[in-house]
Amino acid sequence: MACAIRLDLAYEGTAYRGFGRQPGLCTVQGVLERELSRLLGHPVHLTAAGRTDAGVHARGQVVSFETTATLPAARIARALRSRLPDDVLALRSAAAAPGFDARRHARSRHYRYTIWRGAQPDLLWRRFSWPVAGPLDEHAMQVASDALLGRHDFSSFIGHAAQQPARATSMRTVSRAQWWREDDLLHFDCQADGFARHMVRNIVGTLVEVGRRKRRPGQIGQLMASADRRLAGPTAPARGLTLMRVAYGPALDESNDDRESGT
Amino acid sequence: MACAIRLDLAYEGTAYRGFGRQPGLCTVQGVLERELSRLLGHPVHLTAAGRTDAGVHARGQVVSFETTATLPAARIARALRSRLPDDVLALRSAAAAPGFDARRHARSRHYRYTIWRGAQPDLLWRRFSWPVAGPLDEHAMQVASDALLGRHDFSSFIGHAAQQPARATSMRTVSRAQWWREDDLLHFDCQADGFARHMVRNIVGTLVEVGRRKRRPGQIGQLMASADRRLAGPTAPARGLTLMRVAYGPALDESNDDRESGT
Repeated sequence: MACAIRLDLAYEGTAYRGFGRQPGLCTVQGVLERELSRLLGHPVHLTAAGRTDAGVHARGQVVSFETTATLPAARIARALRSRLPDDVLALRSAAAAPGFDARRHARSRHYRYTIWRGAQPDLLWRRFSWPVAGPLDEHAMQVASDALLGRHDFSSFIGHAAQQPARATSMRTVSRAQWWREDDLLHFDCQADGFARHMVRNIVGTLVEVGRRKRRPGQIGQLMASADRRLAGPTAPARGLTLMRVAYGPALDESNDDRESGT
Repeated sequence: MACAIRLDLAYEGTAYRGFGRQPGLCTVQGVLERELSRLLGHPVHLTAAGRTDAGVHARGQVVSFETTATLPAARIARALRSRLPDDVLALRSAAAAPGFDARRHARSRHYRYTIWRGAQPDLLWRRFSWPVAGPLDEHAMQVASDALLGRHDFSSFIGHAAQQPARATSMRTVSRAQWWREDDLLHFDCQADGFARHMVRNIVGTLVEVGRRKRRPGQIGQLMASADRRLAGPTAPARGLTLMRVAYGPALDESNDDRESGT
């Protein structure tokens, strides 16, 4: 009988062409499905909570798949560890409720964007942050971010500036949009029920323009109302972005200690 | 006229066969000398404070060389930055006193060895730490480390277990040997007038055996007295080791704010 599995992952996106499987390209999903299929002895097709772009990292990605193998669910992560490359970490695995779907059942995703503000580049953070030099008005950036909270049409922040996405899929509810400092690091924590392509990176690129006083903080509301991607700022580099955590409802994930409900 | 230059560097050692130039191999010195020679328009031969091994990192490596180029000394680091690969960072450059030699004039070197103690591997630290699982008696490790302080023959901790080095070069004065915790990281700061090949990594490999209660802390004094490398523990992996800082006397480095004199 097929059993649903939840697998939690961390990875460094630097060497991958994104999460989602693409024929002939090195992707996180491609590597995972290949190694899970070898381990379990049958083809594995997985679903991920967040389809991260090329170069984007994850500390708390969640994927789901079904298996007919007899290997106990909790042992899959450990068995997988020695098979995966160094930059993909199988954190833990567990049996999930029948029909568990890591993507459809996710209640919220928490992404963190990290900007490096040190005078010198940093060895440890260079792959995980975007170095931004010059003055940044962090207070103005926070004021602008507050306008993101709540349910809005995020068309202005989705995709490339050249292409306008379908408006039907661009409504999102943002429950956290917080900048905070950790020494030379400037983090932006953004949580929402879902994110569309390049959304966090476009928001960060625009907010950095606010920090540089090229835009007023009050413009963000107008920008969202315009639903015009061409009016927003540039897309911040992928390497500063990390998928931190995916939250599920208590029925689907008893062990989940993150019961935030949109606050 | 030739001018002496001091250049401060950070690098991630992962991709290099060590610091020192080796024909046909990718080394930090090889990359630096090639790019400095191109930048300055004449062959550059440099001297480094610490010849780090393959896989060992640096946050405060210091090198010296002479140049006849007219480029101001302080601009060399910036001009070099765009030419160097991402994993070698030119931090700053300055004119040094005539005859300055980064190796011979160094008063002390500070190395840090980092052990990862988290239950899960870590994305950010995986290239810069050695994961050690299971209980470790950190107090015993510190007691054992205290025996390293002062002037001793470190033959027992130099080189490979198979080969005994010449005793004449094995006297060193250790001025710091301190373990400290930073969340899931267990750092070992070791400072001495100089270090020999594999010395810090052999000390750490032996101290971890103390932490695992395979050795008593009191054995370290006897071990040094034996001057027998075969009696010490294994060599800890290179990736946990970072050259943090090199200190010079005030006459050679006016801007040096680290005036520690062996305490």
